Amino acid sequence: MKTDQNKVRMGMIGGGEGAFIGAVHRCAAALDARIELVCGAFSRDPDNNRRTATDLGLAVDRTYNSWQALIEQEAQRPAPERMEMLVIATPNHLHVPIALAAINAGFHVFSEKPAAVSLGEAQQLAQALDASNCLYGLAHTYLGYPMVWQAREMVREGMLGTLRKIYVEYPQGWLSENQEAQDNKQAAWRCDPSLAGASGCMADIGTHAFGLAEFIANQQITSLCAELNTHLPDRRLDDDGAALFRTRNGASGVLIASQVCAGEENALKIRVYGDKGGLEWQQMSPNSLVYRQLGQPMQVLRAGVDQPGLSAEALRRCRLPGGHPEGYLEAMGNLYRDFAAAIRSGAAGSAPGVPGISAGLRGMAFIETVVASRESDTKWIELPNVG
Amino acid sequence: MKTDQNKVRMGMIGGGEGAFIGAVHRCAAALDARIELVCGAFSRDPDNNRRTATDLGLAVDRTYNSWQALIEQEAQRPAPERMEMLVIATPNHLHVPIALAAINAGFHVFSEKPAAVSLGEAQQLAQALDASNCLYGLAHTYLGYPMVWQAREMVREGMLGTLRKIYVEYPQGWLSENQEAQDNKQAAWRCDPSLAGASGCMADIGTHAFGLAEFIANQQITSLCAELNTHLPDRRLDDDGAALFRTRNGASGVLIASQVCAGEENALKIRVYGDKGGLEWQQMSPNSLVYRQLGQPMQVLRAGVDQPGLSAEALRRCRLPGGHPEGYLEAMGNLYRDFAAAIRSGAAGSAPGVPGISAGLRGMAFIETVVASRESDTKWIELPNVG
Amino acid sequence: MKTDQNKVRMGMIGGGEGAFIGAVHRCAAALDARIELVCGAFSRDPDNNRRTATDLGLAVDRTYNSWQALIEQEAQRPAPERMEMLVIATPNHLHVPIALAAINAGFHVFSEKPAAVSLGEAQQLAQALDASNCLYGLAHTYLGYPMVWQAREMVREGMLGTLRKIYVEYPQGWLSENQEAQDNKQAAWRCDPSLAGASGCMADIGTHAFGLAEFIANQQITSLCAELNTHLPDRRLDDDGAALFRTRNGASGVLIASQVCAGEENALKIRVYGDKGGLEWQQMSPNSLVYRQLGQPMQVLRAGVDQPGLSAEALRRCRLPGGHPEGYLEAMGNLYRDFAAAIRSGAAGSAPGVPGISAGLRGMAFIETVVASRESDTKWIELPNVG
Amino acid sequence: MKTDQNKVRMGMIGGGEGAFIGAVHRCAAALDARIELVCGAFSRDPDNNRRTATDLGLAVDRTYNSWQALIEQEAQRPAPERMEMLVIATPNHLHVPIALAAINAGFHVFSEKPAAVSLGEAQQLAQALDASNCLYGLAHTYLGYPMVWQAREMVREGMLGTLRKIYVEYPQGWLSENQEAQDNKQAAWRCDPSLAGASGCMADIGTHAFGLAEFIANQQITSLCAELNTHLPDRRLDDDGAALFRTRNGASGVLIASQVCAGEENALKIRVYGDKGGLEWQQMSPNSLVYRQLGQPMQVLRAGVDQPGLSAEALRRCRLPGGHPEGYLEAMGNLYRDFAAAIRSGAAGSAPGVPGISAGLRGMAFIETVVASRESDTKWIELPNVG
Repeated sequence: MKTDQNKVRMGMIGGGEGAFIGAVHRCAAALDARIELVCGAFSRDPDNNRRTATDLGLAVDRTYNSWQALIEQEAQRPAPERMEMLVIATPNHLHVPIALAAINAGFHVFSEKPAAVSLGEAQQLAQALDASNCLYGLAHTYLGYPMVWQAREMVREGMLGTLRKIYVEYPQGWLSENQEAQDNKQAAWRCDPSLAGASGCMADIGTHAFGLAEFIANQQITSLCAELNTHLPDRRLDDDGAALFRTRNGASGVLIASQVCAGEENALKIRVYGDKGGLEWQQMSPNSLVYRQLGQPMQVLRAGVDQPGLSAEALRRCRLPGGHPEGYLEAMGNLYRDFAAAIRSGAAGSAPGVPGISAGLRGMAFIETVVASRESDTKWIELPNVG
Repeated sequence: MKTDQNKVRMGMIGGGEGAFIGAVHRCAAALDARIELVCGAFSRDPDNNRRTATDLGLAVDRTYNSWQALIEQEAQRPAPERMEMLVIATPNHLHVPIALAAINAGFHVFSEKPAAVSLGEAQQLAQALDASNCLYGLAHTYLGYPMVWQAREMVREGMLGTLRKIYVEYPQGWLSENQEAQDNKQAAWRCDPSLAGASGCMADIGTHAFGLAEFIANQQITSLCAELNTHLPDRRLDDDGAALFRTRNGASGVLIASQVCAGEENALKIRVYGDKGGLEWQQMSPNSLVYRQLGQPMQVLRAGVDQPGLSAEALRRCRLPGGHPEGYLEAMGNLYRDFAAAIRSGAAGSAPGVPGISAGLRGMAFIETVVASRESDTKWIELPNVG
Repeated sequence: MKTDQNKVRMGMIGGGEGAFIGAVHRCAAALDARIELVCGAFSRDPDNNRRTATDLGLAVDRTYNSWQALIEQEAQRPAPERMEMLVIATPNHLHVPIALAAINAGFHVFSEKPAAVSLGEAQQLAQALDASNCLYGLAHTYLGYPMVWQAREMVREGMLGTLRKIYVEYPQGWLSENQEAQDNKQAAWRCDPSLAGASGCMADIGTHAFGLAEFIANQQITSLCAELNTHLPDRRLDDDGAALFRTRNGASGVLIASQVCAGEENALKIRVYGDKGGLEWQQMSPNSLVYRQLGQPMQVLRAGVDQPGLSAEALRRCRLPGGHPEGYLEAMGNLYRDFAAAIRSGAAGSAPGVPGISAGLRGMAFIETVVASRESDTKWIELPNVG
Repeated sequence: MKTDQNKVRMGMIGGGEGAFIGAVHRCAAALDARIELVCGAFSRDPDNNRRTATDLGLAVDRTYNSWQALIEQEAQRPAPERMEMLVIATPNHLHVPIALAAINAGFHVFSEKPAAVSLGEAQQLAQALDASNCLYGLAHTYLGYPMVWQAREMVREGMLGTLRKIYVEYPQGWLSENQEAQDNKQAAWRCDPSLAGASGCMADIGTHAFGLAEFIANQQITSLCAELNTHLPDRRLDDDGAALFRTRNGASGVLIASQVCAGEENALKIRVYGDKGGLEWQQMSPNSLVYRQLGQPMQVLRAGVDQPGLSAEALRRCRLPGGHPEGYLEAMGNLYRDFAAAIRSGAAGSAPGVPGISAGLRGMAFIETVVASRESDTKWIELPNVG
């Protein structure tokens, strides 16, 4: 296999057969034909690794048995064929070790979230990144949706006035039963503190809700009061939780994340209200944004290259005219497209349009604070001032 | 005007011109032609009182200038024409004084919520009621909807398994601006502590959310952690709030109530999840109930006398076949219909199917606890064990 | 029982136990406490008639064994207690005979639709009405909804520009099986040509769709091309059909009515599009009206006394603030309220705000034309120019 | 540029800058990383052609100035790098000429719809295909959606019983104004009979509605009665129409297609009803399928690899778990994935899972019949028995 000089050359660690998110990354990266998968270490299981690579048409000599081998040997390849960016699609505990090694070897990193298993580890990564010429992107997929950007832009332009309320919720139902004991790999590692970190549900999806809230509201959450729960007897991490919170700019809100809402799919939803109006967005109907103005009929803004009322940031994340639904892969594809463009532009640090290490630090601060709040009798706990 | 011997004879205090809720009660009471309005003291403003009475076709001698006069003089009328039940549609601070006087005079009472301005006052009312032969009903209108009963019955029958999560929210937007300074009577008294009691938003709509949660979940909330907010500089009571809570049976949840969600109408919504499934109901689409079961496609149960899957309690609260929407007035009409039937059956205390003093005590316990939590640095506050 | 001088005194023919629509009329008439039921002949079955009357609290001497007796004897009562308006809630074949007798005796008539069993019969009624001082109202309930009036007003004001397309559909599923053979009275007479007239589905619900289209589009349908079907072997009238149509003003459209759409409830829906915008209304979510404008984000107008963007005609048909759903009974209640007001105002012919004989003639013209088209090989059939 | 031996090598004719559908095909083909674009003739405008090719990273020697040159020169390349499949994304009049040349040169063809500008031309293509070893696929994108397959499978398995009604509608609004005179290329050729064929709206989107109806209902439409309209004075083809229709198996239905429904995006919707139940699917919410059963609560089946109740055909067209929306590009990606697989499997004629020449013939028969019906005073016109 020879490489296409125009496309960004991508490697992947994790994402072998049975690991849902690996294929998602590959589809999203492929969508705009700007990125080419050139190498991978998909599984610690050599058979799985080999089958995945073969299925993807990867050359044998670009299929590696370990993430260390991948980084080491790719670094020795001639520049024109060498991997440029590395996707990290492993359980959480490997995110930082791999990212550090990759950055050290000069590779751009696109990592699954959360960025790390602790805030300290994320800060270490931030320092390494700072000292490098590499880009770092975080797969906060929901921040790739056009209408999420539309909401952010409307808030920034003051269309809601001063924000008062932020409600964000992320109910799922897939851990209602003891999936981790039933050979469900994704459940197994997410419920294992040594692989997932100090939190289960809050690290897995609470961070998405938190990141979405700060992104759209365009302000930092500074304190919170949380409750975390674990509903199955043998489960070792939280599978559910909620938090009251306050922001630096005087808004308050509620964050809900749960993986035991039986029957729910992936119902991430956010509402923000200011003194002039409000917005509502639901991930499962991502192409609509409800806009309520005081004293005016409700509007529904719609995604699409031909749709009225959209900001430039929203429009450039649409591929199709209105009424041709774009979804989750397209949202992640937007992150990949911007990340690839940033690589070609020679940028370092963070890629415009892509959540970076700052979002990673914020997410880790959130996780540590909700875990601290779980144990505390004191109502309000402040978040570390990072990111 | 002569009275119809078959119909329950109703009087009303409050509900003059400009007081939205009075007309609502009258429509709901009239709907099934089982209740007849025979007297009223609709406003302290004599002109308003007279105009309202005339417009309603009330006789001059049954239109009273004060609530005291109404109770006193109706009590002296001959039994066949005497008022039987009294609707209290005044600001909160008069609920208990009027109710006590009415009960003392032997009249059944149907009161707007909250039952009182303090838990102590509600307990005083409960004692008086206990010592009487009167009925007491509380206008928790949402508990008159068929699909709310359907949800409760499904929980009781164990169709959701053991409940884990309860999310209830009640966003409104009508107090986003300073309505109370703009000659909006309903806003004015609701924002005045001497008329409304210790809470604004939580007393007005938080109690609805709380009552709905306990009703459907069929379990008591025992502790909570709340935040209340007041968003306008001259406003004297909370216009917004949220609470984490826990129930006696081990479920946990979140309650949101706000009157500053700009553009929201009356978006009361509840979701409950157990280890076998979940339910979702929204007041603004009251004839649907979403039922999610683990491992099964989502169902939508629908209100209507001919609709499949409904419990007896839901069916008997429907008047029409499916697809003929019934709404808020019909829900309140269900409470009135049951209250009138209880009067005719000679019952005392509480009317089957109608929230009674127990719901009133629970609501007051809720209000006092969220107000206490507002001021507290301690995370969890227990509710008084009443009702 | 004595009568309330302020209320309009109403009699009813039909609507005994088991006849769904009778109770609907009584609730709708009672809702605003402006109308009082004083007499009835509810069923040809004397037991049913007596039970219904007793249950309603009617005096024995105002309960009649036949519709003829009711009209004759009420006419002889003293004016202050005499029935003023007569509700006809019988199968179709009696609509005109009863209406003629009532008008002849000086009673206002509020009739179920269709107005007659033939256009000729309706024209005879129109003539009688013309020669009288009586009012005639037709229970096109859907024309009582606030958002239907809002749609009509927006079309009239030119907000859609010149109308091009009208799509109206009314799918039901309740005749998917052979209900008429299963002791379902409502199915039985609707499927019997001697009681229902020349059409089943089209007379029963096609007329609603037709009337709604002409009402909102504010223009007459002048020709159509229809197909009618009968899906059960022993069924004697159409249970399903569709028509292409054209209007006098150059618009075209499609009308669908079916009673064999298994699982559908009562899903009446209309969309109209002009060269500037479009509107969409669904009876099962009656408080929303979708408004699409060329080059603007979609709006959703909402019913409610406090909702922005509503015309006076819509507002005066709302009883409650936004978010408190009003439904089918409230819509019919609006017709009754306007009919009662017209009686008190001394009007004759038709009551402002209430569909009258003109709508009745149009509906009969529609039925006769679709039935003619069913048999014809010619594509377009013109409607008689009536109403 | 060297080619990847594993990927199917694709060429494209049409789809230059400004031609929306070209980029759509490229994204859909790229999504699963099974197909590689190796050559193209994107525009007759050499500058546009060159810019498009450069932007896509195509080699100069694989960028052709005409479709003839592309076919001729690709045919002369060595097999390992030669184009294998040709995507035709031109205006309609070139579909067959290019397809014939491609098949003649041994290339597989994936064509935009409609297949041809006349039924005769499509039949000529069918013959050529028959005599070849080539595959032919037609971009009926909507037939790539998982829930469309789910609906088809449920009909095939008899879950609806005997079908009675089929309602399919496709309202768009983008031709409400005179787009074709405003430098909108896509509007311009679609309204030009020499490029689009005998029909505008019906060829462009009516065929989608028709194809979807036959696909899901799993039966052929045999006769129809249509009305076509043209709403702008200078427009030369229909921009709107509707048809009553009947199927070979005794069902009847209505088809609506319009491009002047101001404000509508791309609202393709289908409902089918049998004697046991009904299904409803909407393209703009493609991951839900409403399933109504007689006597049972409504169900909503949902797309997703982990969702209950799905057939194998639906499941294998999902990439993601429930709640991660997949859209239009994924639907078309499913067609490309199946087409590529068929190429690698050595199939000829039609690719399993991809609409082929049979669908093309049916679509042309539909177009010719609606156009004939437009001119006819006879009600029912039979479709040619093809496909």
